[in-house]
Amino acid sequence: MKFIPLLLIALFSLKTQAESPIAFAIHGGAGTITKANLTKEKEAEYRQKLTESVKAGYGLLKSGGTSEEAVIKAIQIMEDSPLFNAGLGAVFTWDGEHELDASIMRGQDKQAGAVAGVKHIKSPIAAAQLVMNKSEHVMLSGKGADAFAKENDLTTVDNSFFDTERRKRALEKVKQKLLKHDHAMNFSPDVVDYKFGTVGAVALDKNGNLAAGTSTGGMTAKRWGRIGDSPIIGAGTWADNQSCAVSATGHGEYFIRHHVAADICARVKYGKQSIQQAGDYVLHNVLSPEAGSGGVIILDAKGNIAMPFNSEGMYRASIDVNGNITVAIYGDE
Amino acid sequence: MKFIPLLLIALFSLKTQAESPIAFAIHGGAGTITKANLTKEKEAEYRQKLTESVKAGYGLLKSGGTSEEAVIKAIQIMEDSPLFNAGLGAVFTWDGEHELDASIMRGQDKQAGAVAGVKHIKSPIAAAQLVMNKSEHVMLSGKGADAFAKENDLTTVDNSFFDTERRKRALEKVKQKLLKHDHAMNFSPDVVDYKFGTVGAVALDKNGNLAAGTSTGGMTAKRWGRIGDSPIIGAGTWADNQSCAVSATGHGEYFIRHHVAADICARVKYGKQSIQQAGDYVLHNVLSPEAGSGGVIILDAKGNIAMPFNSEGMYRASIDVNGNITVAIYGDE
Repeated sequence: MKFIPLLLIALFSLKTQAESPIAFAIHGGAGTITKANLTKEKEAEYRQKLTESVKAGYGLLKSGGTSEEAVIKAIQIMEDSPLFNAGLGAVFTWDGEHELDASIMRGQDKQAGAVAGVKHIKSPIAAAQLVMNKSEHVMLSGKGADAFAKENDLTTVDNSFFDTERRKRALEKVKQKLLKHDHAMNFSPDVVDYKFGTVGAVALDKNGNLAAGTSTGGMTAKRWGRIGDSPIIGAGTWADNQSCAVSATGHGEYFIRHHVAADICARVKYGKQSIQQAGDYVLHNVLSPEAGSGGVIILDAKGNIAMPFNSEGMYRASIDVNGNITVAIYGDE
Repeated sequence: MKFIPLLLIALFSLKTQAESPIAFAIHGGAGTITKANLTKEKEAEYRQKLTESVKAGYGLLKSGGTSEEAVIKAIQIMEDSPLFNAGLGAVFTWDGEHELDASIMRGQDKQAGAVAGVKHIKSPIAAAQLVMNKSEHVMLSGKGADAFAKENDLTTVDNSFFDTERRKRALEKVKQKLLKHDHAMNFSPDVVDYKFGTVGAVALDKNGNLAAGTSTGGMTAKRWGRIGDSPIIGAGTWADNQSCAVSATGHGEYFIRHHVAADICARVKYGKQSIQQAGDYVLHNVLSPEAGSGGVIILDAKGNIAMPFNSEGMYRASIDVNGNITVAIYGDE
């Protein structure tokens, strides 16, 4: 009679396998992205890099990797590309430097890590992961965070490593506009037309665990040690197996004040909304009335994906539970 | 027939007045606070200062001040006292300095401001308010935040202004303990018995507007630019007229990972729980199982007050809608 328990185990394994969807989504920033201001060549470059990133993350999940590993992998591909405002290609601060922010969160144990205002870590998302896994802390900042990463053997670089000509020109343009106004603190979107290029990823692995991560260079011409939503757990990044995983991109101040990532998941968890309903509501009924521009990618534990945004476009890509890939940029696709 | 509309207006005014309760609550930190480790004299000092602070905030509300003003006033009284870990009397970092954090949020428009890791601003909560009201940003950090405050004429001081003998001795003790262990990153509460002395306030003014604020010196012997929950909107501070206002104190990392302040209000807003139910659940069912120690003060738009904590004690005081004052320290009072 030994075969009965074995049969049960075999059936159970099959069932577990069938019930273990994987899914993955990424974004490369939201903002004033229209066909009119993106050349065919640039558009093709973006689509290619988004495809590479989303396939790399999904590939890891497919071969049994964790959601944490997939998030890191996909974000690092975008950090290494000058197309996005994260890692290489990060925007310049007012003082002509780069101050990078990143965060990551795991849905199964709600462990999280973040760095803010780092200048010398090649991969800020790797630094956030290091803080999560190798320190008692959640958030490290500035010089201290750089030193912590260095002591733990992360690759460090000169700040000029992140320089690109395109972002240098953007700084000059933004500074000119800002200096024409009352005072240099007026970062209002009416004055400066920001194209937010923050990158992020959300993943569901075969163990049913969610993860989310976000990495950014912040806001062009930022001053005063300004910290946006990307390194703030609950604002730019959130993951909870009981609700959803979110990575956000947009005008960070609005995303902090409405703690967008965690609020979407709270609406799912306590308000019994779907991720699409919750995401649409927060983007269009909470942020839009205040002109808080941006978007989010959302994934729940069943593998449902939502990618709402209220800006003209959002660089985004996903591979759903059936393996279908989506790569999109504009609002009408 | 002109008297009828006038009568209606008069009646309506009376009704509005009757329906406009004011309420106020403060905390001065939670932790291992027991009768055994607090002398009668120290206990009296704490009760006196808590009374002074809560009466000052409530007095402002009573005379028509806003919830924002009341929060600032009460917190500044505690920042100016060496009894609490905020402003004067803030704990020392690993390097023998002080790095201060603070945040504030208004419930009517969800505007918020925060500073992290500032070293020269006499009143960090005033700096957080300045960021909220005079910048396009929500969160400024480090040297940049100090410079912003100085340019806007806030009082600045030498870092040594915050020194106290008591905190210097605490640093030496904690460093000795930490250096005995594997590595200096082990800030586990098993190794170091922290007495969290963060201060905070929540207020409801006669216009029905909530506000919350928090100010702290952080964790004794903190390194690497560690940022705790106090300056994180949604973690240490949250205010939303549609749910509640919260200020938290405790082991910050747990409060960030569970975005405690905003989660309590989300349970009220979407889960239709009372503030007492929501606060008790988060403290005892979310934080306690992970040994995440601390407490919160909560106020809703009706003036209900809850002050749950899972540590031995929490310095706390409140004045309710009927004008009744409570000043308490231990768990059994």
